[in-house]
Amino acid sequence: MIVAAIDRRERLEKIVTFAAEEAKMRGVKLHIIHSMHGGSRTSREEVEQAEDMLGEAERLAEKIGAEVETHLLMRGNDPAKDILLFCDEVKAELLVIGVRKRSPAGKLLFGSTAQQVILEAEIPVVCIK
Amino acid sequence: MIVAAIDRRERLEKIVTFAAEEAKMRGVKLHIIHSMHGGSRTSREEVEQAEDMLGEAERLAEKIGAEVETHLLMRGNDPAKDILLFCDEVKAELLVIGVRKRSPAGKLLFGSTAQQVILEAEIPVVCIK
Repeated sequence: MIVAAIDRRERLEKIVTFAAEEAKMRGVKLHIIHSMHGGSRTSREEVEQAEDMLGEAERLAEKIGAEVETHLLMRGNDPAKDILLFCDEVKAELLVIGVRKRSPAGKLLFGSTAQQVILEAEIPVVCIK
Repeated sequence: MIVAAIDRRERLEKIVTFAAEEAKMRGVKLHIIHSMHGGSRTSREEVEQAEDMLGEAERLAEKIGAEVETHLLMRGNDPAKDILLFCDEVKAELLVIGVRKRSPAGKLLFGSTAQQVILEAEIPVVCIK
């Protein structure tokens, strides 16, 4: 299993393309996930946007020829915990994430979710910009 | 081309195994590199240890069935710059590095070379613990 975690549209295509090609090459299934808090901290509009994003990711992965499933995680966890738990649950062999964001001043920063996931994951983590 | 950067023996096997399998699967060459400063800041003993390490890495990659070349970089650069320049030079499509080190107190830390490489590389970077 390969897990790809997508956060926003900006990097979706690069993350999904890499993960889908890798899944196809290895002959394993690709799980595409997006983590939200859920409950009162997540609006209906945010959920609809996330579902659209996952739908777009699914179509792209299918076009590449990967076997794919998408999952909108709303378990009250922070994203790093959601991603790490999900990888354990499906016994993932590889995790693909987006890294690098810009500060309001334009400086390149390392996202804290990405840092935590890279440090704590038991499997190789592919970082996509 | 796939580039694998090795720093010390501890993670060598995991880094080289992942990179060699990936190179074999993609039908591309694997370059294994180790960066040292060189000149008066690098002793003959350190160079010999690095050559031994690269030799070990080469034998492992060949055993897995990858086409492999090793390179001891001594260009006076810091490791992050060496790794990024080398990836450009060979037009690498994927970079494999080790991350995570422990502080003297045992706390998990993100190495600064790894952080810089992940943020600045133009290609996907695979992080191995």
